[in-house]
Amino acid sequence: MLSLSRRHFLELALGAALLGRLPVAAQSPPAARVRLRQLGLAIGSLPPGPLNAITDVAGVRVGQVTLIAGEGPLVIGKGPVRTGVTAILPHGGLLSREPVLAADFTLNGNGELTGMGPLRRTGWLGAPILFTGTGSVGAAYDAALGYMLERDPEALSGVLRSEPVVGETWADFLHDTAGRHLHPEHVRQALEAAQGGPVEEGCIGGGTGMRAYEFKAGIGTSSRQVEAEDRRYTVGVLVQANHGRRSQLVMDGVPVGRQIPDLLPERPDQPKSFLAVVATDAPLLPLQLRQLAKRVGLAFSTAQRRAVAAVQSLEVLADGQLTRLYQGVVEATEEAILNSLTMARTMSGRDGHLIHALPLDRLVEVLRHHGRVK
Amino acid sequence: MLSLSRRHFLELALGAALLGRLPVAAQSPPAARVRLRQLGLAIGSLPPGPLNAITDVAGVRVGQVTLIAGEGPLVIGKGPVRTGVTAILPHGGLLSREPVLAADFTLNGNGELTGMGPLRRTGWLGAPILFTGTGSVGAAYDAALGYMLERDPEALSGVLRSEPVVGETWADFLHDTAGRHLHPEHVRQALEAAQGGPVEEGCIGGGTGMRAYEFKAGIGTSSRQVEAEDRRYTVGVLVQANHGRRSQLVMDGVPVGRQIPDLLPERPDQPKSFLAVVATDAPLLPLQLRQLAKRVGLAFSTAQRRAVAAVQSLEVLADGQLTRLYQGVVEATEEAILNSLTMARTMSGRDGHLIHALPLDRLVEVLRHHGRVK
Amino acid sequence: MLSLSRRHFLELALGAALLGRLPVAAQSPPAARVRLRQLGLAIGSLPPGPLNAITDVAGVRVGQVTLIAGEGPLVIGKGPVRTGVTAILPHGGLLSREPVLAADFTLNGNGELTGMGPLRRTGWLGAPILFTGTGSVGAAYDAALGYMLERDPEALSGVLRSEPVVGETWADFLHDTAGRHLHPEHVRQALEAAQGGPVEEGCIGGGTGMRAYEFKAGIGTSSRQVEAEDRRYTVGVLVQANHGRRSQLVMDGVPVGRQIPDLLPERPDQPKSFLAVVATDAPLLPLQLRQLAKRVGLAFSTAQRRAVAAVQSLEVLADGQLTRLYQGVVEATEEAILNSLTMARTMSGRDGHLIHALPLDRLVEVLRHHGRVK
Amino acid sequence: MLSLSRRHFLELALGAALLGRLPVAAQSPPAARVRLRQLGLAIGSLPPGPLNAITDVAGVRVGQVTLIAGEGPLVIGKGPVRTGVTAILPHGGLLSREPVLAADFTLNGNGELTGMGPLRRTGWLGAPILFTGTGSVGAAYDAALGYMLERDPEALSGVLRSEPVVGETWADFLHDTAGRHLHPEHVRQALEAAQGGPVEEGCIGGGTGMRAYEFKAGIGTSSRQVEAEDRRYTVGVLVQANHGRRSQLVMDGVPVGRQIPDLLPERPDQPKSFLAVVATDAPLLPLQLRQLAKRVGLAFSTAQRRAVAAVQSLEVLADGQLTRLYQGVVEATEEAILNSLTMARTMSGRDGHLIHALPLDRLVEVLRHHGRVK
Repeated sequence: MLSLSRRHFLELALGAALLGRLPVAAQSPPAARVRLRQLGLAIGSLPPGPLNAITDVAGVRVGQVTLIAGEGPLVIGKGPVRTGVTAILPHGGLLSREPVLAADFTLNGNGELTGMGPLRRTGWLGAPILFTGTGSVGAAYDAALGYMLERDPEALSGVLRSEPVVGETWADFLHDTAGRHLHPEHVRQALEAAQGGPVEEGCIGGGTGMRAYEFKAGIGTSSRQVEAEDRRYTVGVLVQANHGRRSQLVMDGVPVGRQIPDLLPERPDQPKSFLAVVATDAPLLPLQLRQLAKRVGLAFSTAQRRAVAAVQSLEVLADGQLTRLYQGVVEATEEAILNSLTMARTMSGRDGHLIHALPLDRLVEVLRHHGRVK
Repeated sequence: MLSLSRRHFLELALGAALLGRLPVAAQSPPAARVRLRQLGLAIGSLPPGPLNAITDVAGVRVGQVTLIAGEGPLVIGKGPVRTGVTAILPHGGLLSREPVLAADFTLNGNGELTGMGPLRRTGWLGAPILFTGTGSVGAAYDAALGYMLERDPEALSGVLRSEPVVGETWADFLHDTAGRHLHPEHVRQALEAAQGGPVEEGCIGGGTGMRAYEFKAGIGTSSRQVEAEDRRYTVGVLVQANHGRRSQLVMDGVPVGRQIPDLLPERPDQPKSFLAVVATDAPLLPLQLRQLAKRVGLAFSTAQRRAVAAVQSLEVLADGQLTRLYQGVVEATEEAILNSLTMARTMSGRDGHLIHALPLDRLVEVLRHHGRVK
Repeated sequence: MLSLSRRHFLELALGAALLGRLPVAAQSPPAARVRLRQLGLAIGSLPPGPLNAITDVAGVRVGQVTLIAGEGPLVIGKGPVRTGVTAILPHGGLLSREPVLAADFTLNGNGELTGMGPLRRTGWLGAPILFTGTGSVGAAYDAALGYMLERDPEALSGVLRSEPVVGETWADFLHDTAGRHLHPEHVRQALEAAQGGPVEEGCIGGGTGMRAYEFKAGIGTSSRQVEAEDRRYTVGVLVQANHGRRSQLVMDGVPVGRQIPDLLPERPDQPKSFLAVVATDAPLLPLQLRQLAKRVGLAFSTAQRRAVAAVQSLEVLADGQLTRLYQGVVEATEEAILNSLTMARTMSGRDGHLIHALPLDRLVEVLRHHGRVK
Repeated sequence: MLSLSRRHFLELALGAALLGRLPVAAQSPPAARVRLRQLGLAIGSLPPGPLNAITDVAGVRVGQVTLIAGEGPLVIGKGPVRTGVTAILPHGGLLSREPVLAADFTLNGNGELTGMGPLRRTGWLGAPILFTGTGSVGAAYDAALGYMLERDPEALSGVLRSEPVVGETWADFLHDTAGRHLHPEHVRQALEAAQGGPVEEGCIGGGTGMRAYEFKAGIGTSSRQVEAEDRRYTVGVLVQANHGRRSQLVMDGVPVGRQIPDLLPERPDQPKSFLAVVATDAPLLPLQLRQLAKRVGLAFSTAQRRAVAAVQSLEVLADGQLTRLYQGVVEATEEAILNSLTMARTMSGRDGHLIHALPLDRLVEVLRHHGRVK
């Protein structure tokens, strides 16, 4: 974790340098935040992978850059800045030459991902996935395209070319969205920093300015291991949570939101959206991945890469096994969202707006009262 | 061809018997109709299969029932009757247990096929395909379901169940649509009669009352053989043509419709629709089949059937090879439509309405003038 | 309620007569079932309409036919029979001539509704909606088409024609699905019986053999009144519930399913589906109705009918008001599902299979323990 | 035309200045290119508007920036440069506050437009439309977003926010795509230059490097006037043509491509795509606009703008009138494509590649031979 944290601070510093000013202590001290399982609560019945993260799916890489700068009144183009970008790479190879099978499912039209045209047509994903804030889609797309072309000048040619997959959610309550502070350099940096291993959660990367259920939230991740016949597969989920009213916050069936009705932002905010990506090493075809992406958005399988051959042989898991994988997705998605809440810290931003962190002591009390933790 | 013709007459007689009256000479004498190639014109550059029919794709079966009865004024429930049903089976085995991969592409919403829900979700087709007239969808669906359940009482259970695929076009100009003369028994008969070999074209089956470019049309079929690397694949198309204005009739680039502007129906008719199905033995995944179905409607591959196994291995043709297969579909679709025109005969029907057959002598003259035939 | 009950019994008798045998006491005595609000629990915060039913939307009509016959081992074609059909009509006028605006949203492909082609193309719904069991789609479609054509022989002509909207769920655990006992006559009867006023719930109509959360369920309904600026609108929901595992049953945030883990069917069943329709008198365009149908399936607005005019003026509610209507849909959908549970009675069927009713005394105890009822 | 041409040269100069080098004579002399009608050929039967351009729809504005620089071998990042951007604005007001109704129809997944998520969800378009080359999507999106935010800092907030609509086609045969020479400044310039009046066609704006039927092509436009009952409506189309093999080039039914089989590029190129936008002043709802966009991509209506009101009244043209409008779209689209061909000039580019202009003298000869022109 040390190197990750160090990288995080370097990112903050670089972000600030690029913005021409210093990072500011806009977050509560990093002391007390832990993941959900460290509170004693686990969602569902399937076991998580070793990291309980999307990177439990072998090969998947995550890189994040966070920009936090300024306090006080909004001055468009100046700040305050509470944004970033989270890059997810299906594997560490040359994606444009070795795409993986993928599919999306659009539940809400708003906030549709870019690059879905080629993906829906071919079922192959040969480009990075980027989660960021509204207003940074162009920068993220542009930087990802540059990154792809540098590695493979032919990346855009051919009937099977992929386009960068960029999703965004809206952080205007804390952040100077119209100032568009995320530059292609930041995106590039996230792509190059992407690696396996633990994934930072909370107010980081694309999730920096986000909130869920009117608490501070952001990036969260979780994974599940699923037995299907003789084999064991992993599903991993990474979310950028930015949705929900307090009263809708339910954890493992406990109506937590109703029990902690205070600590609301000063003014209610409009309905928000949610980004998530599912990775799995199960050999699934696009229509099967679409089933996994049903309540999520995007799913890909690392099990197989496109081969340069007239006829390629692909393994396909029986559809009857999808139910258990889907259970893994449901469990991991819920836990990833909750991790984004338990890991995020109170943050102030634009015009002095404040979004409180979910108070872990009170959460544990509520869960204990309902017999969920000891 | 003899036995086919005999079956055709049996069907007419049976249809009439079921309707309680005799078949009437509503068609011009069967003398002069031939397929497009017999006129000396071939569409495109790829070679057709031996039958130049959808049944060139090994295993594919077609069965048709035709109902022609009555003349004169429309009496709803009495006639005149100009309808039928065409059944297409991907193979002769137990479809519900051994489905094939398939996909649809909806260009026009009107006249959507039934059963697309499960097919779009899973990519597997385990049910018959039926083309019929508007108003007969319920009867065709019901009869096909009965047929499926008799063969496999578990056909509707399970996450992968298919539903009958029924498409319809509108023949109200000649036919008593509201009388709904096609009964489940007729549909059953078409399903049971389905077989490989030559396919009858023109005013038969689901195409009985249809017209295209304001000439009489109906069922047509064609096929193409395509080389992809070392292998040879076949694509076959079957259409139920019921579309187009005269001026839009172009054959191999020759504006035939403009050269034969007469022989129009007494009154212009509303825009109409078009049903087509593509069969291929190339190993294609649903998203690839969706590409082939792009201007057509529905495509399936007989190359592989679903196995009862936790993990099944599927062969997949490289996307780069799709272009040539698609060329085969384009050529075979055009030729299938033209076969439906050159094989259909002048037909009278409801209220004395008349739809002329495309006059082959004048067609040849036009084609000769443009250097297409000698 | 008296006349409704009388109709219900007539329907059972007629159903039995049509099947050639007598109704059998396959349900627990009608004594103790009540709607959710009669237990003291209301879902959400918006007020319901006077009937708390989809028929609170002025003009909407519901008609149901129920077929219950036989006990003991499954004999395909003989029974036991636990099925029916529920018809929903947007208004009592000539639908084909005065269609209403409508839209669907497909979350799960399986069990897609028929007739969606024309509806998605034009946005107008001019045909009845029918909920029934798997295997009865053809019969329901066919009967509804006959009903439409009798009232309007031109119902199928024209660019704007609608097709019957038929949805189905799977009741094979109790019912002889393959025997297909629902005949067009039954469907016709439901259409003709459709009327405003109270709607029967539980084991009735299309919901006869269904279950939810592994308790007996079926048809349920609820409504909400919503203020938008100066006006008041009603949204009504009718569901055919056939989904969910016991552990997923949560009422108003109370994990009821975990507290009543017994009374399960003898063997677990596969995941099932869910049908619902939303009616509203708010003036909404198809894309707005699609938003309301998002977690539901189908929504229509009775506010306006298509006029015979070159240019028609339509009122459109501002999108900003959709959130409150959607809240009404969410609340009414949850309550409709719960009504289907609290109104359904224990039912036995095929091969002696038994599905228990949700025990209301134990439910009240759980709700009281969580402070939801006194 | 004078000021337009002057603007064009300014743009070229500016583009070159931004690239740090001088424009080069990469095009044939501007002498002989004319629009299709100037050759004596008109497509279809409906009359065009006064300009025969998309700007015949009152209020519609078009702005284009063209970048042409360098010759010789490809050096990624240096050139040769053959690119640009074409901006289309539905009206000159504040789009984010006064969006217009719009819809898309995706025939081919590849090259999907950005911003379709919000548009499909709400039916309102409140952002500019931009056509450019592959690789410039991020720059175009980013610049358009900045343009929107400058005019309306709230442009991204709210449930109805629009996103820039950016489409691209592939010009790699002539252009250094990977060098990504189009900068946000160029896009901004096209947006600010957008105006009514005549529209330049051929090798300009987003169409600079494009070709169709293996001739040089690019931007083309056309319009039609349509009578519907007592009213007259205009439909206008603008295309960026980049598709087709020579043999597929048919003009008004004349197989021109087969008659001019020479002047091919030195090496065959892969199948390409096509961008088009339809504008109309007919009062159409999104589902109706979707019908107009069927073979095109995107359609919007300027007839009505969103009002700030709880309930807004919208006029809606009867669906029965759509056929004639659609005929207008078909005719105008064909003529727009042909205008892009007759107006484009021979262009050389990357690695000395050359794409010939359609030779107008030979075209006229072919058309004369077929009796189409005198």
